[in-house]
Amino acid sequence: MSSRTELSKKSPRESFPHSAYIASQSIQEFVPTSGTYPKGFQVGSINVGIKPASKSQPDLVLVASEKPSNGAAVFTKNEFPNASITVSKEIVRRTKGWGVRGVIANSWCGNTITGKQGLEDSLIMSKEAGRYISGETTDAEAESSVMVMHTGMGGQRLPINNIIKGIPTLHASMGNSHTHWLEAARGLSTTDTFPKLVSRTFTLPSSPTITYSIAGLTKGSGMIHPNMATTLGIICTDASISAPALQNCYPPLPRNRGPEISLDSSCEDFISFQRILVEFMADMAKLVVRDGEGATKFITIRVHGAPSYAAGKHIASVIARSVLFKTGIYGKEPNWGNVVAALGYSLMNTGKGIIVGELTSVSFVAEGGEVLKFMERGVLGVVDEQRAKEVMEKEDVEVLVELRDDGKEDGGEEAVYWTCDLTHEFVTINSDFGN
Amino acid sequence: MSSRTELSKKSPRESFPHSAYIASQSIQEFVPTSGTYPKGFQVGSINVGIKPASKSQPDLVLVASEKPSNGAAVFTKNEFPNASITVSKEIVRRTKGWGVRGVIANSWCGNTITGKQGLEDSLIMSKEAGRYISGETTDAEAESSVMVMHTGMGGQRLPINNIIKGIPTLHASMGNSHTHWLEAARGLSTTDTFPKLVSRTFTLPSSPTITYSIAGLTKGSGMIHPNMATTLGIICTDASISAPALQNCYPPLPRNRGPEISLDSSCEDFISFQRILVEFMADMAKLVVRDGEGATKFITIRVHGAPSYAAGKHIASVIARSVLFKTGIYGKEPNWGNVVAALGYSLMNTGKGIIVGELTSVSFVAEGGEVLKFMERGVLGVVDEQRAKEVMEKEDVEVLVELRDDGKEDGGEEAVYWTCDLTHEFVTINSDFGN
Repeated sequence: MSSRTELSKKSPRESFPHSAYIASQSIQEFVPTSGTYPKGFQVGSINVGIKPASKSQPDLVLVASEKPSNGAAVFTKNEFPNASITVSKEIVRRTKGWGVRGVIANSWCGNTITGKQGLEDSLIMSKEAGRYISGETTDAEAESSVMVMHTGMGGQRLPINNIIKGIPTLHASMGNSHTHWLEAARGLSTTDTFPKLVSRTFTLPSSPTITYSIAGLTKGSGMIHPNMATTLGIICTDASISAPALQNCYPPLPRNRGPEISLDSSCEDFISFQRILVEFMADMAKLVVRDGEGATKFITIRVHGAPSYAAGKHIASVIARSVLFKTGIYGKEPNWGNVVAALGYSLMNTGKGIIVGELTSVSFVAEGGEVLKFMERGVLGVVDEQRAKEVMEKEDVEVLVELRDDGKEDGGEEAVYWTCDLTHEFVTINSDFGN
Repeated sequence: MSSRTELSKKSPRESFPHSAYIASQSIQEFVPTSGTYPKGFQVGSINVGIKPASKSQPDLVLVASEKPSNGAAVFTKNEFPNASITVSKEIVRRTKGWGVRGVIANSWCGNTITGKQGLEDSLIMSKEAGRYISGETTDAEAESSVMVMHTGMGGQRLPINNIIKGIPTLHASMGNSHTHWLEAARGLSTTDTFPKLVSRTFTLPSSPTITYSIAGLTKGSGMIHPNMATTLGIICTDASISAPALQNCYPPLPRNRGPEISLDSSCEDFISFQRILVEFMADMAKLVVRDGEGATKFITIRVHGAPSYAAGKHIASVIARSVLFKTGIYGKEPNWGNVVAALGYSLMNTGKGIIVGELTSVSFVAEGGEVLKFMERGVLGVVDEQRAKEVMEKEDVEVLVELRDDGKEDGGEEAVYWTCDLTHEFVTINSDFGN
């Protein structure tokens, strides 16, 4: 889903020196200088004039497999998705994930609510990319196996002619070097302050001497909740996995469901790969949160003792979306009151007995695991205020909600949610664009 | 529910000249200079040192009926309410609303998660107020019929000795003048930039020559969603209504349910009074929204064509809570894209078929009713950009979502939601307090 209006030819960041400062810090820490990329994939990016020249970034990205590959996709559940969702869903439906050739993605133009024209443009983009990847240059009408992605400002027609003209050069410039991958990540970016690229190697139980690679591109950054919103991700691996297995990897079953997975699957490799993939996706997601628009904090919300993973996740998500909580964290305040308030309305009487005041504790957790318990079983805890201030100064802040703080070990399910703070710069970015 | 940490002895507004400017504008427009107050009620307020001296405002408020009256109450559903909720709920349970003598309320100290001590303090407050109102000065242990309210910073003990010492003076100073009511509204305020007081007269069908009065106090302002959060309201009327009828007035049944109300109730006066009360409460609620922390805009979100009032209200509430939407309105941008995005995830597949792209239109509505249709049945509308900019300059902004824009008159249910914008000042207020 990419129907945002926050993007304009004038980047909101351009006139905001503070964000450049954050970016330059973050780039050093979060942008890799090398990587391990999966064999059999080619990656390219080019500027075809969708982004303003001042961005000096690619805006059209192609990720292609050298041979037909197995693919799977997870789509936004938003009821106003952009045209690429319709086109890509149809490819998945038709191919069932067999023989996928790649992904073509553009940034800075979301192609939302553009009706039939938008759908046609999106389909042409897929077919043109497919022609070049498969070498079938004579049959533009052939059904394509190249998925499409758009992200950026909605309600504007895609500059499809620029895109078509750019594809040959884009295709010719593809490669598998670190620079190719990093430039592609820059190409996906919209208001991101740094490109988001993750790669690693892994082995599987059935062949411990073979090293596989996995690499992923993603982008943020304003609207990351709920259900992906404008976040995009492309992940490639050279491990051989069947299309149905890939599609079953995500979403994973919750923690503590290992035995059930084992029963459902005969393949040790699948379980192992699923764990690797979920961790890998978590690392990609963390980059997106880290670079939330205007963000200065990376916040982890951990809920312990939930009767189910779903209930715990819901509670954590309500806290994570509390504007007061997020703003307070920006102010470096240990806002346990805002946590408690959000916790208190999180289930709104739909889950009677799940939240019990006298059993509930709320803490801020310092690096290294030190627990500052602000609310202890429903009443005010005794906390070293000075120490609390120190903890809140850190870029990473963790909130722990214990729903069953009764000293017993058997504490139910755990859910973890990541979010960022809500800052003056967020308001600047999302209010003054276009002005 | 009042477990906020946003209040400190140093008011966040004190160091922020911009907010003072907003307040001085708003005071002229929204603070009444006279009123019509119900007979039989006495109102008082006093400063007992809970608020900082620099606020120059009362912080303890007493609203009392001269004779035992009929009362009803609606409470927050938050699972971490402050002690006053427990005490007041018990009074309603015990009395069933018969013989209620009044409400005592303090601001600037929320008395949340203060355990048994907090509960005792709240109970003492009720009983001490009850002693003075009923004149039973010898029996402090008598069961009280005075409800209690706290609002303000959580996790701190109520200065109960100050409160007890203040009650005799507070009681002696009560009256029924405009000044008494207005000062009481100031006494309820926390981060409010203006006191919130509404009054009016009305008649009932059974006695058209008798004029009744209704008056209400309320306060904001940061955490008004969901289910009242820290918002308080006290409403008095000299119309005679039985306690059970009062309790049935709110929440009202949705629009278009008039016939069912008629069937359920034999009393024309009840139906009439309920309509008056709901409109009156809407006016009080609007003042709270108008004075949302840092707010510069009053936003109305209207959803047409919903299959039920509940579905429409839910959709409107999701848009109203979209941080991107609220921030964009602050920037005076006609952010139809953010409206569409929020609309698109509002039901998250729980209400299949309710949102149908090709039937859905999104407009901004100008004063006077001019409709600027940005999305027309799922595709981009043709809108005069210059006119749109003019409309967004106004303090009052209205968004119209038509779920069944098919030209038919029978358009299902309507739901309306009010909210305010999210501004730099909101972030300032909620991040730098305590620093």
